[in-house]
Amino acid sequence: MKPLLTRQDCLAADSVDSLAHFRPRFTLPPGVIYLDGNSLGPLPAATPARVAQVVQREWGEQLIRSWNAPPLGAGWVGLPQRLGDRLATLLGAEPASVRVCDSTSINLFKLLAAALALRPGRRVIVSEADNFPTDLYMAQGLAALLAQGHRLKLLPAGARPQVIAEALDDDVAVLMLSHVHYRTGALHDMAALTALAHARGALTLWDLAHSAGALPVTLAESAADFAVGCGYKYLNGGPGAPAFLYAAPRHHAALASPLSGWFGHAKPFAFEPDYVPAQGVDRLLVGTPPVLSMAALEVGIEMMAEADPQALRAKSLALSDLFIARVEAERPDAGLTLFTPRHHEARGSQVCFTHPAAWPVMQALIARGVIGDVRAPDILRFGFTPLYTRFVDVWDAAAQLVDILRTRAWDASQFHAKAQVT
Amino acid sequence: MKPLLTRQDCLAADSVDSLAHFRPRFTLPPGVIYLDGNSLGPLPAATPARVAQVVQREWGEQLIRSWNAPPLGAGWVGLPQRLGDRLATLLGAEPASVRVCDSTSINLFKLLAAALALRPGRRVIVSEADNFPTDLYMAQGLAALLAQGHRLKLLPAGARPQVIAEALDDDVAVLMLSHVHYRTGALHDMAALTALAHARGALTLWDLAHSAGALPVTLAESAADFAVGCGYKYLNGGPGAPAFLYAAPRHHAALASPLSGWFGHAKPFAFEPDYVPAQGVDRLLVGTPPVLSMAALEVGIEMMAEADPQALRAKSLALSDLFIARVEAERPDAGLTLFTPRHHEARGSQVCFTHPAAWPVMQALIARGVIGDVRAPDILRFGFTPLYTRFVDVWDAAAQLVDILRTRAWDASQFHAKAQVT
Repeated sequence: MKPLLTRQDCLAADSVDSLAHFRPRFTLPPGVIYLDGNSLGPLPAATPARVAQVVQREWGEQLIRSWNAPPLGAGWVGLPQRLGDRLATLLGAEPASVRVCDSTSINLFKLLAAALALRPGRRVIVSEADNFPTDLYMAQGLAALLAQGHRLKLLPAGARPQVIAEALDDDVAVLMLSHVHYRTGALHDMAALTALAHARGALTLWDLAHSAGALPVTLAESAADFAVGCGYKYLNGGPGAPAFLYAAPRHHAALASPLSGWFGHAKPFAFEPDYVPAQGVDRLLVGTPPVLSMAALEVGIEMMAEADPQALRAKSLALSDLFIARVEAERPDAGLTLFTPRHHEARGSQVCFTHPAAWPVMQALIARGVIGDVRAPDILRFGFTPLYTRFVDVWDAAAQLVDILRTRAWDASQFHAKAQVT
Repeated sequence: MKPLLTRQDCLAADSVDSLAHFRPRFTLPPGVIYLDGNSLGPLPAATPARVAQVVQREWGEQLIRSWNAPPLGAGWVGLPQRLGDRLATLLGAEPASVRVCDSTSINLFKLLAAALALRPGRRVIVSEADNFPTDLYMAQGLAALLAQGHRLKLLPAGARPQVIAEALDDDVAVLMLSHVHYRTGALHDMAALTALAHARGALTLWDLAHSAGALPVTLAESAADFAVGCGYKYLNGGPGAPAFLYAAPRHHAALASPLSGWFGHAKPFAFEPDYVPAQGVDRLLVGTPPVLSMAALEVGIEMMAEADPQALRAKSLALSDLFIARVEAERPDAGLTLFTPRHHEARGSQVCFTHPAAWPVMQALIARGVIGDVRAPDILRFGFTPLYTRFVDVWDAAAQLVDILRTRAWDASQFHAKAQVT
């Protein structure tokens, strides 16, 4: 792709973008450039009707019958499988290895406990010091619950493969990493690190929250053991959409879920007194799926599954390259520093800059209709989701950022208000 | 209330029913008598618009900002608290002691693990042999995970208080019971059994799935320690609606959640590396709440909170009395036996009969528009939810059941089809 040097170049690039047809399939508020789809994906245009159908027809009219498989019902009971199987393709996973259920935190707990049980005698979970906090918290909670001396060993943020390799001694049971880092946007080499872990007798557990739907994920080809991820970012499943989990088929037979609920039972509706795990990955299900939230997520997954992952990745990198280039070309403020790795193979679909006044800068941007977010203490985070973000959006967003920094527009009092969630 | 001896008596009773105004606030399919609200509550008429508002306005237009508390956002981040506090009143619970989150199974796991930690040295969880299976499965899974010799001791179904008392020896940490039994409809005396457990040094964990919204629940007055329950039955929250949990305030400070996720952290959005539990019951939250499902549940909880619990209970008993009386008066079939306790103080809001041909009998009833369900092996289960069930519905449902049994209409081949979910 030739460099985009003018706004006109961006409009031209948008006009030949093979993914451009996806943008009208989202409901995007007018006047907004939304660069926070890595936190909450926007509303697919098809979602309101799908949710309304589930609420009014499947629940309202068909009532309890909708739990049955078609043609008797709407197949609610099979939603974790239906969505999981669709997602498996997107994740480069084997058939019947992905299920949609619960939250990312809870899925991580299940898989981490199962992984530790597969490596008895080993007591260490290796992760990064600034991995997404809930991943670390859940591991801490599991270790405390087990009370068998398990511990979490945290490597410095952004540890290189050789540092990770050194940490993988004979006591390490699991290497638990985010595929793409939520703060830095750094991308790990899943295949290489998995091979490293396996060579040392450890298993891998990947958090795909910032990679599923953002770039090609190759779980099977990478020989990954386990993975989790969330439905409300790049998959556009809606606020708090259910999460997903992956377990490599070679582990299924030996897999013990610590959260052994009835939906993971071999015969959930036989109401037997003793737990007998279902075959395969289904044993990792727990309770009744939240059907309305699952319905919205299904729309997001279906749309994402239509897109060519290679095209997504190429556009995502082109968008983020453009943003970095535009901001750096203008050198608007000596305090602004690129935080995300510059090289393609080392980053996901987001770009972060650090700036001492990150919070008010972002508030000023949002006031101008450019929505990104801030991660403590000083990170401006911009997600470049290729399904609906245009090159011209990136051009305009960069121009606004540059102007706000150059004019110190962020220093107005209203932009220093107390921190909120985003 | 005077006995209802004719269909005309039922119509008259409906015309003076103080709860009658709730029925038009549900979307009930025409021609259906729905006696399965104890499995999946029907659609409140206000729910489609509320869900559509959350999808289209809060998600579609306001996007990520909706996580913020009002007036900046729609307050998504506080949904577990907002719904929980509203529900607390309905459950006779102290302020800030109830939260809406996750599934019943997962909430039970959290509280059971926390309860065991409060009773170190004690190794036994006492429950009933035919308690709802997932409750038993989750306890089995926790015991296996802890690997410290914990075990589940199951008393015979419907054990009397004196049998329960005998089981509560010095090794019992938790008495885990369903307040109303899912199969028999039997009601336990929460206050008496809690007092018994406390006298023996044990804690209580109540499953309120079949009592929350069905009858007055008095968690605080009963000095209950912990409780869980589900949102999709009497609370009319929709299929797979999020569940709830209760922890008595006296336990909050010492409570350790084994599922220590970021939403249970003291500062979820500070992204700190170490888990520090939130104050109070909030520490039992785990991951991001499924907002669409929470929105639907909120409508159900709000409506239920408008109803007088004493009036609900009185009508529920009158409805179920009527059903028992009508069926028994007609003696349609020697194989039909009342399974639910007859006395008011000993039952919840459902009536079960056993019959050797329970499955085809229920299919024949459903074909005539009377929807109940079957629980293996031979239980016909009818839920009498007082918010929207009329006396005349009960009269007509009983008449249909009597006719089907008397004419052996259930013996037609189409009613013997393979068992489904319901």
